[in-house]
Amino acid sequence: MPDTDERRPRVLTGDRPTGPLHLGHLVGSLRARVAMQDEHTSFVLIADLHALATRSDRDSIERMHEHVRSIVADLLAAGIDPDETTLYLQSAVPAVYDLAVLLQMITPRRRLERLPSLAVMARDARLADDEVTMGLLGYPVLQAADILMARAELVPVGADNVERVELARTLAETFNERYEPIFPLPAPRVATVPALPGVETVPGGMRRKMSKSLGNAVYLSDPPDVVRDKLRTLCRLDGLAPDDQPLAAFVHAFLPSDEADETARAFAEGRLSEAAVLDRVVEAVEAELAPIRERRAAVEQDPDRIDEVLVDGTIRARDVAYATLEDVRRAMGLATFWDQAVEAAHARSRRRKTPFGPPS
Amino acid sequence: MPDTDERRPRVLTGDRPTGPLHLGHLVGSLRARVAMQDEHTSFVLIADLHALATRSDRDSIERMHEHVRSIVADLLAAGIDPDETTLYLQSAVPAVYDLAVLLQMITPRRRLERLPSLAVMARDARLADDEVTMGLLGYPVLQAADILMARAELVPVGADNVERVELARTLAETFNERYEPIFPLPAPRVATVPALPGVETVPGGMRRKMSKSLGNAVYLSDPPDVVRDKLRTLCRLDGLAPDDQPLAAFVHAFLPSDEADETARAFAEGRLSEAAVLDRVVEAVEAELAPIRERRAAVEQDPDRIDEVLVDGTIRARDVAYATLEDVRRAMGLATFWDQAVEAAHARSRRRKTPFGPPS
Repeated sequence: MPDTDERRPRVLTGDRPTGPLHLGHLVGSLRARVAMQDEHTSFVLIADLHALATRSDRDSIERMHEHVRSIVADLLAAGIDPDETTLYLQSAVPAVYDLAVLLQMITPRRRLERLPSLAVMARDARLADDEVTMGLLGYPVLQAADILMARAELVPVGADNVERVELARTLAETFNERYEPIFPLPAPRVATVPALPGVETVPGGMRRKMSKSLGNAVYLSDPPDVVRDKLRTLCRLDGLAPDDQPLAAFVHAFLPSDEADETARAFAEGRLSEAAVLDRVVEAVEAELAPIRERRAAVEQDPDRIDEVLVDGTIRARDVAYATLEDVRRAMGLATFWDQAVEAAHARSRRRKTPFGPPS
Repeated sequence: MPDTDERRPRVLTGDRPTGPLHLGHLVGSLRARVAMQDEHTSFVLIADLHALATRSDRDSIERMHEHVRSIVADLLAAGIDPDETTLYLQSAVPAVYDLAVLLQMITPRRRLERLPSLAVMARDARLADDEVTMGLLGYPVLQAADILMARAELVPVGADNVERVELARTLAETFNERYEPIFPLPAPRVATVPALPGVETVPGGMRRKMSKSLGNAVYLSDPPDVVRDKLRTLCRLDGLAPDDQPLAAFVHAFLPSDEADETARAFAEGRLSEAAVLDRVVEAVEAELAPIRERRAAVEQDPDRIDEVLVDGTIRARDVAYATLEDVRRAMGLATFWDQAVEAAHARSRRRKTPFGPPS
């Protein structure tokens, strides 16, 4: 059972189940999540509803669910400890939908339309203007519902998602002011690590951020020889300064920082060959992947554990979400009215059942 | 317990709890609802969530809840029979929120933006452009969730709301095609009765449709002398053809149709004085209001009955809504995935509990 000690800061992160996790996730997010889980009350959501905002046909939903299990396996392998972290499936927490609808009532529509990241999502999903759904426009409100239902104070995100956390913060402020102060104000924690570039498994792969959809990713679940072969496609790029070389990014991302600085300098000054640097990167990545691979093997020995972790975490998340929703409904006056109606209805029913009581 | 016989057509209507019901509601909607309830499986929702889309401050919510009880009293007084009709409070049916969020995923945003009635609602609520909420834009999807959760086939509406039922129909078609055919296609039934004009309690009151916000309404809960005084403000308007006179509208709305035609003709031809027509209208309205007033007195003798009717109806509506949501989640593949995860989790837990079973 995760510690829900109120004095621990509450942190929420999540993944859209669009594919397996890769080294970019490891460097940009997973290490920090694993490091934080001991000192924080930690929530990790598998954002399957969010994935529906851009693709909601039946086949996409089925593919998405295959990814859910592989992502949970990746998270467990990477060191997310379900005894410390509430790992849950967004679509199976009913109160999140209620919160989203109620938050929509206090969300200015223009504020959503101005979010640049929505246009980016529509473009990435190759949606024509008339294919953009209300669900996509409402996506940041759903994200705010996730953040606020967990009463998260810290939301580690990439720079492109800061505006979403800021929206959640504005909605928390609006709610606290208009009704009752029930929400802590969530703050984004922007990753200080630069985004990891991809590998050259596709032409130009090194020139873009590592990403499943670009085909330039090294997956946590790749076997050692695949990892090695993919990493060995990294090479010096003409026209880039030494510090901007993708290989230098891998050096900084995977070697201990003292050694990384020294190695990068030696590489830049030509004292170290590309092949030597590559050997050291492969070795360092392998050193980090080895225990991940070991934990993944254990998970694969016992695949039902994936389901158990997800179901247990989701049931815990439901309790948290219901408690928040109850506070929200009480603060807005919705629960008060309903509770009074139920009380009056019960009183009348009790009177009817009392043979010598007052007439009903 | 209302008849949920599947062969009876399912009909849904609703009221936003913004004020007490008046003669315009009686003529335009209540008579038909009461007449339909015996031959239909009938749902009447009190749309308190819809009211939040334009006004969500705490005071407005409190005022709204006072109106909820007065509207239920009006509906019971008008002859809505809670043994025939499921009368329920929208905000207290959790599955409606879930359905709304899922339907947003298949609703093109542009289709919502093109609905003229949204601009009208924003104008009527005196909302500046930057005060329009996501909730208002999503309002028609929430309405579709109400209609589809009840699997309504018939939705009696005013002409200005036809486009909303058509949106619900499109969403039902899209859902049935994309996933599984679980929804009957709802059809609007547009009132054939012309809208009742107001009374002249305010200058120009007769020239507008009867409406609470215009101050030109005769309420079902008005006492007889108030009804009489308000009706007696009706008079011949200069510059209007005899058939377009507001008084003629009251004649057609409240006198039996044979008598109405003859009375209107005699009035138009000057064979009947304004005072004589007015007397007959007052008499006819009173004849219709008398039993309504009697039922209202009974309700007021036993105010907890209002709560009991609302709570019982809402609990019935919840069952209907959960059943629909379950079908929706199954059709989309969301329930299938979750059910399998729960089953696998249980299997693992059972194995752990079996001391001589297979290792866990």
